[in-house]
Amino acid sequence: MIDINEELQKLDWQREPRGLYAPIAYTLDSGGKRLRPTLALTACEMYCGDAQPALPVALALEIFHNFTLLHDDVMDQAPVRRGKPTVHVRWNDNTAILSGDQMMTEAYMQLERISPEQLPEVLRIFNRMANGIWCGQQLDMEFEKREDVGVDEYLEMIRLKTSVLLGAALQLGGFVAHAPEEDVQTLYRIGEQLGLAFQVQDDLLDVWGDPATFGKRIGGDIVQNKKSLVQILALQHAEGDTLLALQGWLHRQNFVEEQKIREVTALYDALGIRSLCEARVEEYTASAMRDIDCLSVPDEEKEKLRVIARNLLNRKN
Amino acid sequence: MIDINEELQKLDWQREPRGLYAPIAYTLDSGGKRLRPTLALTACEMYCGDAQPALPVALALEIFHNFTLLHDDVMDQAPVRRGKPTVHVRWNDNTAILSGDQMMTEAYMQLERISPEQLPEVLRIFNRMANGIWCGQQLDMEFEKREDVGVDEYLEMIRLKTSVLLGAALQLGGFVAHAPEEDVQTLYRIGEQLGLAFQVQDDLLDVWGDPATFGKRIGGDIVQNKKSLVQILALQHAEGDTLLALQGWLHRQNFVEEQKIREVTALYDALGIRSLCEARVEEYTASAMRDIDCLSVPDEEKEKLRVIARNLLNRKN
Repeated sequence: MIDINEELQKLDWQREPRGLYAPIAYTLDSGGKRLRPTLALTACEMYCGDAQPALPVALALEIFHNFTLLHDDVMDQAPVRRGKPTVHVRWNDNTAILSGDQMMTEAYMQLERISPEQLPEVLRIFNRMANGIWCGQQLDMEFEKREDVGVDEYLEMIRLKTSVLLGAALQLGGFVAHAPEEDVQTLYRIGEQLGLAFQVQDDLLDVWGDPATFGKRIGGDIVQNKKSLVQILALQHAEGDTLLALQGWLHRQNFVEEQKIREVTALYDALGIRSLCEARVEEYTASAMRDIDCLSVPDEEKEKLRVIARNLLNRKN
Repeated sequence: MIDINEELQKLDWQREPRGLYAPIAYTLDSGGKRLRPTLALTACEMYCGDAQPALPVALALEIFHNFTLLHDDVMDQAPVRRGKPTVHVRWNDNTAILSGDQMMTEAYMQLERISPEQLPEVLRIFNRMANGIWCGQQLDMEFEKREDVGVDEYLEMIRLKTSVLLGAALQLGGFVAHAPEEDVQTLYRIGEQLGLAFQVQDDLLDVWGDPATFGKRIGGDIVQNKKSLVQILALQHAEGDTLLALQGWLHRQNFVEEQKIREVTALYDALGIRSLCEARVEEYTASAMRDIDCLSVPDEEKEKLRVIARNLLNRKN
């Protein structure tokens, strides 16, 4: 199997000017799940027995994803990413903007390695994906200022911000392997459903996750009033005193963080939000698994995708 | 002839989310010389009698150029562009970053309209251009903190920051019109030379321009100690008391602006910097004109490019 970390390092980030490329090397060297290239390489391998043809799109997707995180961290003024200071902290905002722009160019440079016959469609898929992500980021910024965000528009936002990239990864991997047109569309949908399942599960884990394995602090979303499916469903289902209590916590300026986490979680529990969210995760996962069943490849090939899906959602079966 | 403003408006910037697209419409509606699309359309027309095939690259170049200005204005925290508040002032920094990112995607979306045979080379040229511009921006940022910038590295910076985009515009216009390979390379060089001539002339006009026609305030570079060929050559040529006087003005914190402009200009005059810079402009222009002469098209076609070059450099002949 292709080692994506190794391939990323091969791209020679030691070029001049150092001030432009060093932050890119730093960003790409920070690890991460490498989920997007893995999806692209796996889809490709499923259809042609070889992951190699998907290497350019896999690299393009990973560089692009990390670029969106870089600009996102500037916009959120986030101090830490994957345990390391973010680029705009280690260097400065301007460096993060400019090195990010160069990363977008680097992603498109990877597409130069696609065969001329496939390039038009690959470029089209890649552009649609990028466009979707910017729309998702924009909605995310707008939702921060609103208190009346509904379930459907929240799901549409996370679909754009997260899922289209996973969808495009599977779609591109299948496309470069000459998968049948119908399968290419199905692959996109699988990525999209997995992305939704993953994101809703992330919202769930923030409240009910195991502190030992979650990686982030439990209750972080609650403390910051961050929009999540948990919060949105709770506000939708709550009535009377429960609604007043929830809204009270949303507007309180001074509070003991542990108390806020404990009491808001209790309200969520009383409203049965956990099982509502879990049902959504199940639904998206089942939909993805059904779509995987429909792909026109032998079952042992489908199993490769199922394994990734199960790992992604931390499931034992 | 194609009306590039009209074509830019046709691209439908009324899409949702408004927060993402409104700043793009605002930016593209601010006018500007439309030099880059004009170069691409003209080069195309010279070789195939029709500007239409170059419309996608012309739009891509103009959108990309305006995108670089948008991010540049955030990085410089510039308040005004083309007489209007900049996007980060009218909205905010995050909007400018995100809408800028979407503009880069929009530029690449225009390339989807290129014929499949030509797309690989067009993508390659476009990516190299983008890469050059980011390198130029990076050098520009680094030079701001240095006092020992030499003539050659300054020229290399403006070549990357300005000229590669003009070069790519002519090159892409010729390429999509199926100009001979040698002419495509020559077209690139013509754009590059014109870009250098234009930029050095801009440095000149800041000091010796006619306040009635310059558009910007005369002496702006002097007040801000902005790097320019004028300043760099002056520091290189000055000795003894003249050098001390120049350096004194560079380091003085409190001064009357009009006095600084007057005295620094007098030092430049005493050093004969104006004619040194004018000789450079002449040299680049002559080089571009010689290259235009070499193109394998009838003289009346070459004349179209000469007219643009003369207008660009505000020359009567």
